[in-house]
Amino acid sequence: MGIIGLHTRGWDKEEMNGTGNLMDFLDEPFPDVGTYEDFHTIDWLREKSRDTDRHRKITTKSKESYWELIKSLLDAWSGWVVMLLIGMLTGTLAGVIDLAVDWMTDLKEGVCLSALYYSREQCCWTSNETTFDDRDKCPQWQKWAELMTGHSEGAGAYVLNYFLYVLWALLFSFLAVSLVRVFAPYACGSGIPEIKTILSGFIIRGYLGKWTLLIKTVTLVLAVSSGLSLGKEGPLVHVACCCGNLFCSLFSKYSKNEGKRREVLSAAAAAGVSVAFGAPIGGVLFSLEEVSYYFPLKTLWRSFFAALVAAFTLRAINPFGNSRLVLFYVEYHTPWYMAELVPFILLGVFGGLWGALFIRGNIAWCRRRKTTLLGKYPVLEVIVITGITAVLAFPNPYTRRSTSELISELFNDCGALESSQLCDYVNNPNMSRPVDDIPDRPAGPGVYSALWQLALALIFKIVITIFTFGMKIPSGLFIPSMAVGAIAGRIVGIAVEQMAYHHHDWIIFKNWCRPGADCVTPGLYAMVGAAACLGGVTRMTVSLVVIMFELTGGLEYIVPLMAAAVTSKWVADAFGKEGIYESHIQLNGYPYLDVRDEFTHRTLATDVMRPRRSEPPLAVLTQDSTTVEDVETLIKDTDYNGFPVVVSRESERLIGFVQRRELTVAIKTARQKQDGVVSSSVVYFTEDNPQVAEACDPQPLKLRRILNLSPFTVTDHTPMETVVDIFRKLGLRQCLVTRSGRLLGIITKKDVLRHMAQMMNQDPESIMFN
Amino acid sequence: MGIIGLHTRGWDKEEMNGTGNLMDFLDEPFPDVGTYEDFHTIDWLREKSRDTDRHRKITTKSKESYWELIKSLLDAWSGWVVMLLIGMLTGTLAGVIDLAVDWMTDLKEGVCLSALYYSREQCCWTSNETTFDDRDKCPQWQKWAELMTGHSEGAGAYVLNYFLYVLWALLFSFLAVSLVRVFAPYACGSGIPEIKTILSGFIIRGYLGKWTLLIKTVTLVLAVSSGLSLGKEGPLVHVACCCGNLFCSLFSKYSKNEGKRREVLSAAAAAGVSVAFGAPIGGVLFSLEEVSYYFPLKTLWRSFFAALVAAFTLRAINPFGNSRLVLFYVEYHTPWYMAELVPFILLGVFGGLWGALFIRGNIAWCRRRKTTLLGKYPVLEVIVITGITAVLAFPNPYTRRSTSELISELFNDCGALESSQLCDYVNNPNMSRPVDDIPDRPAGPGVYSALWQLALALIFKIVITIFTFGMKIPSGLFIPSMAVGAIAGRIVGIAVEQMAYHHHDWIIFKNWCRPGADCVTPGLYAMVGAAACLGGVTRMTVSLVVIMFELTGGLEYIVPLMAAAVTSKWVADAFGKEGIYESHIQLNGYPYLDVRDEFTHRTLATDVMRPRRSEPPLAVLTQDSTTVEDVETLIKDTDYNGFPVVVSRESERLIGFVQRRELTVAIKTARQKQDGVVSSSVVYFTEDNPQVAEACDPQPLKLRRILNLSPFTVTDHTPMETVVDIFRKLGLRQCLVTRSGRLLGIITKKDVLRHMAQMMNQDPESIMFN
Repeated sequence: MGIIGLHTRGWDKEEMNGTGNLMDFLDEPFPDVGTYEDFHTIDWLREKSRDTDRHRKITTKSKESYWELIKSLLDAWSGWVVMLLIGMLTGTLAGVIDLAVDWMTDLKEGVCLSALYYSREQCCWTSNETTFDDRDKCPQWQKWAELMTGHSEGAGAYVLNYFLYVLWALLFSFLAVSLVRVFAPYACGSGIPEIKTILSGFIIRGYLGKWTLLIKTVTLVLAVSSGLSLGKEGPLVHVACCCGNLFCSLFSKYSKNEGKRREVLSAAAAAGVSVAFGAPIGGVLFSLEEVSYYFPLKTLWRSFFAALVAAFTLRAINPFGNSRLVLFYVEYHTPWYMAELVPFILLGVFGGLWGALFIRGNIAWCRRRKTTLLGKYPVLEVIVITGITAVLAFPNPYTRRSTSELISELFNDCGALESSQLCDYVNNPNMSRPVDDIPDRPAGPGVYSALWQLALALIFKIVITIFTFGMKIPSGLFIPSMAVGAIAGRIVGIAVEQMAYHHHDWIIFKNWCRPGADCVTPGLYAMVGAAACLGGVTRMTVSLVVIMFELTGGLEYIVPLMAAAVTSKWVADAFGKEGIYESHIQLNGYPYLDVRDEFTHRTLATDVMRPRRSEPPLAVLTQDSTTVEDVETLIKDTDYNGFPVVVSRESERLIGFVQRRELTVAIKTARQKQDGVVSSSVVYFTEDNPQVAEACDPQPLKLRRILNLSPFTVTDHTPMETVVDIFRKLGLRQCLVTRSGRLLGIITKKDVLRHMAQMMNQDPESIMFN
Repeated sequence: MGIIGLHTRGWDKEEMNGTGNLMDFLDEPFPDVGTYEDFHTIDWLREKSRDTDRHRKITTKSKESYWELIKSLLDAWSGWVVMLLIGMLTGTLAGVIDLAVDWMTDLKEGVCLSALYYSREQCCWTSNETTFDDRDKCPQWQKWAELMTGHSEGAGAYVLNYFLYVLWALLFSFLAVSLVRVFAPYACGSGIPEIKTILSGFIIRGYLGKWTLLIKTVTLVLAVSSGLSLGKEGPLVHVACCCGNLFCSLFSKYSKNEGKRREVLSAAAAAGVSVAFGAPIGGVLFSLEEVSYYFPLKTLWRSFFAALVAAFTLRAINPFGNSRLVLFYVEYHTPWYMAELVPFILLGVFGGLWGALFIRGNIAWCRRRKTTLLGKYPVLEVIVITGITAVLAFPNPYTRRSTSELISELFNDCGALESSQLCDYVNNPNMSRPVDDIPDRPAGPGVYSALWQLALALIFKIVITIFTFGMKIPSGLFIPSMAVGAIAGRIVGIAVEQMAYHHHDWIIFKNWCRPGADCVTPGLYAMVGAAACLGGVTRMTVSLVVIMFELTGGLEYIVPLMAAAVTSKWVADAFGKEGIYESHIQLNGYPYLDVRDEFTHRTLATDVMRPRRSEPPLAVLTQDSTTVEDVETLIKDTDYNGFPVVVSRESERLIGFVQRRELTVAIKTARQKQDGVVSSSVVYFTEDNPQVAEACDPQPLKLRRILNLSPFTVTDHTPMETVVDIFRKLGLRQCLVTRSGRLLGIITKKDVLRHMAQMMNQDPESIMFN
């Protein structure tokens, strides 16, 4: 695809960091030697070997005394403790967010008189005066117009309710965007693209800080309650990762090692999805498939633990009062038939098209936001979009309420006692059947009007979601995508159901749909549609099917879900290989090396390495002929992360690599503390003690201890596909290029990414559909 | 652990290959250039780059004509086709095995008069004369004694039945071991250790051949039916992998690339577990966690597809007549309570101890089999063990029937209509309650006698399983392990239940167990015990919990299962880090580089590389001064897989690596076809055309095209932990060691393994419990 190549834009440091200085004092301390700078790439191999060293030290020490033994056991246990804490905090936060969103969404329409902090459902539960038939009206719950004017009907009341609905929405979204702007600019968006980048080994300081956690939680509630077309699922993953980062700081094992920290963050992401969908196994697979980069088996097991703890904490809080973890858990009672695979696959095609359309539209809009004046007024943008959303949403009952309630209703099968408009079927008065097994019936007028409203809601959701995702407030797109799919699916489902009822003698229905049987479940179509649309946007596969499987709880329905997910992925892939998260990573120019991109070009390491032919030669140090002054000049004149050390400029045989950071510190320390080290002192990297030829020579400076004697090398003839593989699997930061032992150049991770983007753009094959 | 180091034993080529020549003509063709020899390690990087080349060729060609485009599309789809075929064949085979085992197990006791091919259950279903109370006796089904003598009761009938039971068992097992001996020696054992080794990149020719598939399927039925203490789960994975290998040969994409082939085999393993446990997701995770080595995301998705197809094929066959995939699917109706975690964790401890005991005992016995005369008489061994098993199993009703039936009964909760001895509780005649929700009741005499029988069965199973696993017949140990755990769990469960009933005023029961409530579910204890024992033996974690979760179908019971699995793993790990599969890999000396072993020693590459100080120098070629004769001598005198090529013997600067196989072929071809190439011809590896100094010089031989210009190198100072990491992640076969560009030595995968085994043995820490 290569919508915008890496070579054309920077890391957007300013934009992301601009207003975030308020909370600096709350976040990470000043980086010391051994850690990385902001917006830099970590070296996985080095982190791993540092952890092994640490572990070795602890093991050796543990034999010395009982106290050390206990300390080593505590250290071994700390991973599980962190997981437990993450699970508990994530579950709690998810529960609190659910409760708060519930209450504030209802606040837009009315208030509970018996207790102001009750949501409508809680209010009507506690009220004894509610009869079963009249569930939607309970005297304790009053709409604003009723409360203020005493009239609940009529044009005046409608207008007043309408006005207050929009006003509350504007207030919530204004609060959300202001909090984000002032306190934590990193709290905006879904966070998943950034978390993917961080997990792949990039440093974005403060992105997972305490302040971000606090503000994201609060503004997420506000944003969702404002009725914008966004969901809480993606941001919950970000919140969970913030929790993970928070608890990492309790243990030096994790806080001081960027590699180990990322293991914890992978598990936290799993916990986030676990509470968002009530699907612990799906969460672990999501983390494995979609988010994580380095996922050892130990992490798999711990992620599972964290995801379970989070799910059980949330269940203990029980925000929906039904001991389910999510609002849209369903159980179907009728099987599906082979012939239904045709509409399911059509829904898959729809999902794929929606995914492609959404990604194109959203990326185009986000690029416009980045490049035009629009980006300068984020608050205004949020206000305007909220206003439009609220004004258009109120008249339609399917868009007025919260999106997850809508999904829940669309997923549900019509029982006999259902009072919703969607279940307004014409009943046969002569028939008495068990509640769960109702035969297909002709649709009543309510169903037909619901179909119209759903069709309008579909168009509205499709358009508004494209503009909403990417604004400067927390916004997930799982829920809006699922809503689009669920609406489309329900419409298709009702159509098939009515067709089967009225034409059960048609050859396609004849075999499986006798009159009076319950053949078609429109709710299942809604679920299949939701899976297809979510798959089209995110390109998830296994985790998507497993999450949906955990929502229905039956192996039975995996085949329809899988058929739709596969179709949707194939259709969407035809329009562009990247999912929404990868597209946003590209848009923001993060240095992310995707595991799934196959690099299939014939280039060699020599085509990618620096210096190029036109460039000045590589900045190297020699092992025994560079002076302190030379080194200082080199450090001043260049901004490389490190320098290769060679035997001599003539032979150019590589002996090691030295980090810029360590070199700077070593020279500074030597200048201050070591007598006789002056500008003309020779820096030695050799093993033997240098022979000081004459007494008048200045004291030499030995720096072998900071020399990395095992730098990673490849030959200039190594195919780039192998180099890419090595960078990916070993998580390298840079790699030196040699030919028959002579140093030729260097390849950094950014060189690799730049080359890949370049090849993608130039290759006609990859941009065929562009 | 290092029970037997790699350095002390060979690859057991003879033993495994000995009698297997009969089916050579059926299996792989003679290996040509480019493939690997038997018992060699593959080079993952090379396989990958070969596949990229192939893919590149197809993509380029596809633009030339429509026919080529169609061919390229077919090639892209072939992966899915292979998965579909694997799923269907695996599911079918699993169904056939289930049906055959069912019938033959019952054949040991009696026969169905209405149709000889009916199992007892099928026989009694079809019979109309069976009343509900008298389910165990139906007139169509006759025991052997009844059929032969007319008497179904009395000592004579008992002895006759006993005798025939043992006779059938001996017949089945004799047939099984003979078939394995004569036709497919690779069909013995569980197969999982070998499949792990193959998937990690080792070649064992014929291990996954058609002949093995056929014989393993047949003998698996015989072995399970004979009543030996073994299960079909492990061998089903082997059977599935054989199917995978079979379908690989249909597509050159997979048959000619050992790396791609292994992706298919990983998916096949998932399909195997999927049908063995009716757990598709668990199967994928099992393949990911336990079996596979290289598991890219694409494989994850395809594995899931294969696992689902297999599960649905099996369901279509419906071998158990209840539309469940396994016999021991259960649904519980009562929750568990926090206080019950104590017995659950105790069961975990039991499982861990059993795992440690089993691994110790079984490995000791297998080593004895390998080193003493015992190994010479595999048929006799099987006969003797079968005899002992059958003689001891018949008198006890819990061991007489098949192990999966036993597990199924132990897992089940006692309903009101249950007629089993285990459900012989004293009913309160005054109480009428719904069927599912029966309060705890005092145990009747049947339960007490069942407890005694179960205790005897437990001891019997524990002892006999240790001797059974590893015999020369197909034998899985999932089922026997689960049986041990289920028996122990059920005993504990009944004990807790009776304690809670009789002492519900004790403080621990007071809070959750009112009189007349259904507090304790002994079936759940059986399931927890099964999970604990399986976990102790195999050290599975996530996949174990997910498989068990798919058996119960409720998130509710994950916490008990997880608590037991974690405890059992920790307890078992304290006695030795390796699971049974890793122990068998070590015992057989397979070159398997475990992903999970952390290498934490301080050794460097220079300590491991060959040649050692005392050894002759490394066999190298020079780029422009070796003659054809020199090369031929080198090939004859050494058996290395390849040779490094250096600039000259003086400078020793590395320029590439040449494979022995390719060198041999190139020289042979040149000798035959190229004029002027004689023994004194100089072999050139340089880029430029060699300048032939004088006309009388023989024609030079240019071999640059077979030179690998990007051999993998590390410096001599590289820590071994990094080298191990590189070997693991990149799947290298060998790696060259250099210092400042000079070639010092070579490290092969076997050197790494040897070094790791050595370090483990010498390190007092690792052998603490040995």
